[in-house]
Amino acid sequence: MQELEKAILDKGTVLPGNILKVNSFLNHQVDPALMYQVGKEFADYFKEFGITKIITVETSGIAPAVMTGLVMNLPVVFAKKNKSLTVQDNVYAAEVYSYTKQTTNQIYIEKQFLNSTDKVLIIDDFLANGEATKGLINICNQVKASVSGIGIVIEKSFQPGADWLKEHGYQVKSLARIKSLANNKVEFKD
Amino acid sequence: MQELEKAILDKGTVLPGNILKVNSFLNHQVDPALMYQVGKEFADYFKEFGITKIITVETSGIAPAVMTGLVMNLPVVFAKKNKSLTVQDNVYAAEVYSYTKQTTNQIYIEKQFLNSTDKVLIIDDFLANGEATKGLINICNQVKASVSGIGIVIEKSFQPGADWLKEHGYQVKSLARIKSLANNKVEFKD
Repeated sequence: MQELEKAILDKGTVLPGNILKVNSFLNHQVDPALMYQVGKEFADYFKEFGITKIITVETSGIAPAVMTGLVMNLPVVFAKKNKSLTVQDNVYAAEVYSYTKQTTNQIYIEKQFLNSTDKVLIIDDFLANGEATKGLINICNQVKASVSGIGIVIEKSFQPGADWLKEHGYQVKSLARIKSLANNKVEFKD
Repeated sequence: MQELEKAILDKGTVLPGNILKVNSFLNHQVDPALMYQVGKEFADYFKEFGITKIITVETSGIAPAVMTGLVMNLPVVFAKKNKSLTVQDNVYAAEVYSYTKQTTNQIYIEKQFLNSTDKVLIIDDFLANGEATKGLINICNQVKASVSGIGIVIEKSFQPGADWLKEHGYQVKSLARIKSLANNKVEFKD
């Protein structure tokens, strides 16, 4: 997606440790017009998939997910994060390990918002190791809901998440795919 | 706002302790079409205020704020929450007390995303005691940015936040104003 790649090149910052900061349009400041374009791209790609519900994880997934929901006219559920790992009865929960922070969080969705007939589109801002996405898949599996598609704003293709998802048969659409962040330079996969 | 009041009556749940749960369209599951209507209402009300930036607090403020930003064609910054109260150099921070959770969190915005020439519209999902809103005002005051307006999705008018803001000269627009949640019943202020 050209506008997105341009925003990454113009406004992103590469930090040591393969970190791409896109705080100025996605993770802290949000560019709503760009997020709407992101939503249109996902809506267009997944329009024939019979999606019934969009899910994401708080916080940075919310903007692209609600814009996708707006275009597709679908409800969006954002999984909440919980530091304490006490599982409640009324939620589906999964553990998510963060490589960046080296901590394990619980994410959860209230049972009333997901059911076995749902065809779910998972949206997230970043895909690197895929831990958050796997957590959402885990929740869908508990519900026996179908994971019909996965929409990622920025994929770090050099990290294992994207390959893992594809090898396991998931339909992944990433709007920007980054091949390398070596030498503080963003290189896209064509 | 009629659609919003209808959603509150049809889908909201009143819990003991004056708690209104609107998890099915605002705080956990989000109704993007309704949030877009919310954004249009705010955009219409604040259109002559010369707003340059919209700010909110993660997590539940993000959906209404980005929809407002979409309609007004303005950037949105969501303040992040931090459990640890270590202040970093590159951020403006404020402490926010949560009456519900009885904890104090720090919220912060990176300095690069707010400056003294900004005319800020603060958006939040709920206004009760007004602690989160006061935290955002505190941050704007540190930057010497103007707080040009405050847009609230659901105001609990029987709690002190709304009156405090108005008494201090802030321009507050609340789309649903709740007079009482007594006897588990939602009563709107006309």
